[in-house]
Amino acid sequence: MPSQRTIALDAMGGDFGPSVVIPGAALSLERQPNADFILFGNETRIREALGAHPALAKRTRVVHTDFVIASDEKPSQAMRRGKGSSMWLALEAVKNGEAAAAVSGGNTGALMAMAKLILRPLTGIERPAIAALWPTVTAECIVLDVGANIGATAQHLTDFAILGAGMARALFHVERPAVGLLNVGSEEIKGNEAVKEAHAWLKDHDLPITYKGFVEGDEIGHGVADVIVVEGFAGNIALKTAEGTAKQVRRYIKDAMGSSLLSRAGAMLARGGFMALNERMDPRRMNGGTFLGLNGIAIKSHGGSDAVGFASAIDLAYEMADSGLIARLTSDLAACQTMTAGKAASG
Amino acid sequence: MPSQRTIALDAMGGDFGPSVVIPGAALSLERQPNADFILFGNETRIREALGAHPALAKRTRVVHTDFVIASDEKPSQAMRRGKGSSMWLALEAVKNGEAAAAVSGGNTGALMAMAKLILRPLTGIERPAIAALWPTVTAECIVLDVGANIGATAQHLTDFAILGAGMARALFHVERPAVGLLNVGSEEIKGNEAVKEAHAWLKDHDLPITYKGFVEGDEIGHGVADVIVVEGFAGNIALKTAEGTAKQVRRYIKDAMGSSLLSRAGAMLARGGFMALNERMDPRRMNGGTFLGLNGIAIKSHGGSDAVGFASAIDLAYEMADSGLIARLTSDLAACQTMTAGKAASG
Repeated sequence: MPSQRTIALDAMGGDFGPSVVIPGAALSLERQPNADFILFGNETRIREALGAHPALAKRTRVVHTDFVIASDEKPSQAMRRGKGSSMWLALEAVKNGEAAAAVSGGNTGALMAMAKLILRPLTGIERPAIAALWPTVTAECIVLDVGANIGATAQHLTDFAILGAGMARALFHVERPAVGLLNVGSEEIKGNEAVKEAHAWLKDHDLPITYKGFVEGDEIGHGVADVIVVEGFAGNIALKTAEGTAKQVRRYIKDAMGSSLLSRAGAMLARGGFMALNERMDPRRMNGGTFLGLNGIAIKSHGGSDAVGFASAIDLAYEMADSGLIARLTSDLAACQTMTAGKAASG
Repeated sequence: MPSQRTIALDAMGGDFGPSVVIPGAALSLERQPNADFILFGNETRIREALGAHPALAKRTRVVHTDFVIASDEKPSQAMRRGKGSSMWLALEAVKNGEAAAAVSGGNTGALMAMAKLILRPLTGIERPAIAALWPTVTAECIVLDVGANIGATAQHLTDFAILGAGMARALFHVERPAVGLLNVGSEEIKGNEAVKEAHAWLKDHDLPITYKGFVEGDEIGHGVADVIVVEGFAGNIALKTAEGTAKQVRRYIKDAMGSSLLSRAGAMLARGGFMALNERMDPRRMNGGTFLGLNGIAIKSHGGSDAVGFASAIDLAYEMADSGLIARLTSDLAACQTMTAGKAASG
C-alpha cells in the first residue's frame, strides 16, 4: 500500500509557508528516503521552492489551491468555511486514503476542528487529544493532552492512556509502554476526582500497558514513563513551563559564560560540549503536536518553526504512519470497550 | 513591637530536624541580625545543636515538646490530634502574637490544615493558597496557588491575585505589583470558565495592582509579572515541572562538559562562570512555600532541605513579617469586598 508512506503537507501553513515547508520536506526525505509527498497550496510558489530540491520534486505531487486559512481564523469559522483550503485538502487526502498522515504549521484550533470533522474520532473516543514529545534524561516520552481540551473526565484520561500507549508503541517500539498519570502527589488520596477515578481504573484493568501510577511534574523529564497522561489545561501549562524554563536556563548559561574573560576562554575551549548541549536542548528536535484519537494522523508543526523543525514534524508523521498506528489503536480501543462493558454487565 | 521580628520554628520538622533547623536559623540570623527565635521541640536535642551557635542561642527561646507530627500523618488526623506538637505550638505562637511568622519543614498537608484551624483565614478568604517564589531572568516572581487547593472558582483566583500582590509588595517593594493570570493562550476565548470570569473581573476593577491579563507557561520565568495566579492543580504541576526541567538541564550540562578532554579543560577554565550558574540555579535560594490568606504568616520549608535552604525559608518569613503584610492584606481585602458589594448593589 504505497499511501502508507505518503505524507500530505499543508504547504501554506505556518509563518513562512512554502519557504519552510519545502526545505523541511527535503530534509525529512533524506532521512526517510521512501516517503512520498502531496503538497497543497499555491502551485507557482510551491514549484518555485521545489526547484532547489530535485530529489523531493520527483517524489511530490502538487495540488493547487489559493485558499489559505488565516492564522487568526476562529475554529468554528474554519470548519464552516475552510473547505478547499490547503489545510482542508491535506486532511481530506488522509481521509481518502491518498496519504497516511497530514502535517500543517497553520492555526492549531482550526486544524483540530477540521481534523475532527474530516477524519472523525475513533470509535469510543469522545475527545481527541494533542500529544507532545518531551525530551527526558534517558530519551523521550509522550505527554498528552497538551491543550486540545480544557477539563477531562476519568474516561477521557483513560482514553488518553490508551492513545498515548499506541503512539509510544509506534515510536519507541515497546510492546507494553510504561504509562504514568500526572498528579500533585504520589499518594492515592491526592488529586481531583477524575484523576483518582482514572487511577483506580488503570490499576484494575489488564491493558496492554505497564501502569506506573501517579507521577509528579518533576518526574516527567526523568524518564519514569513512556507516556504521561494529564488533563489539557494543566498539560499545556506544564509543556510551556518546561519550554520556558529550558530557554531561561540557556539564557543563564550565556550570561555566566560571558561574565569574565576566563569564562569566555573556557567556553570557547569547551565549544564541542556546548554544541552537544545546544543540540540536546534544541526545541526543534521535538517539534510536532500529534492529534491522537482520530481515524488518521494529523500533526501540527509550530507555526514559527524553520525547516529543521518542520522536518522533525514530518519525520514524526512518517514514523507513525509507517507503524500502522491507527489499525492497532482501533483494536486496542475495542478490547478496552469490551472490558468496560464486561465489568458493567458483571458489576 | 518586638514580636514583629520573632520567628517561631518547628525544630523537629523535615527530614533532619534540629540538625538542619538550628544551623539554618544561625545562617539566617547573620543576614537578619534583628531576628529573634522561638524553637519548639525536644529541648535536649535543640540545646545540643545550639551549642555550636552561641549568637543564635542568645536570641532564642526554647519551648520543649516531645510530640512531633509524622511525615505521613493525614491532615485530618493532624488537626484532631496534633495539639501540643512542635508544629502546632509554632503556629500557636503566631496566633498569640508571640511570633510574627512560623516556619516548618514538616508534612505540608498537616501544616496547612493546622494553620487554617489555628490562624483562621482572613475575612473574605475561603481558600488560603500556597505561594512559591519563582526565579526569572530578571529577578523573581510569586506564583500561587501551587497546591493548597485542587480546583478554583473565579472568586478564588481573584483572591489569589490580591494575596499574591500583597506578598509582592512586601518582598519586592513595588506599590502596584504586576499580576498575570496563567492560561493556555493569550486570547480572551481561551481557558475554562473560572479563568475567563476572573480575567473579566480583574480587568474591570480598580485594584492596587497592574493587571497584565493572560500569561502562558513559558512566560512565567521571563519576568512578565510580579505575581502569576493559577489554580492549585495546574500550579503545582507547573512548579514541579520547572524544577524538574532545571534539574534535567543541569544533568545535560554535566554530560556535555564531561564528554571530551577539551570540554573538561574548558569547563575547568570557566569554573567561575559555572559557579555563578550553579548559584543562580540553586533551588535552595527559592525554598519556602508561603501560606497566604491566613491571620498570620506560615512558611513550609522543603522537607529534604539542608541548612542553606532552611535559612532561605526563614529569610522569607522574616521579610514578610517585618513588612506588616497581614495588616495591609486585611485592608486590601476589605476594599475589594466593598467594590464587589457596591457592584452587586448597583448592578
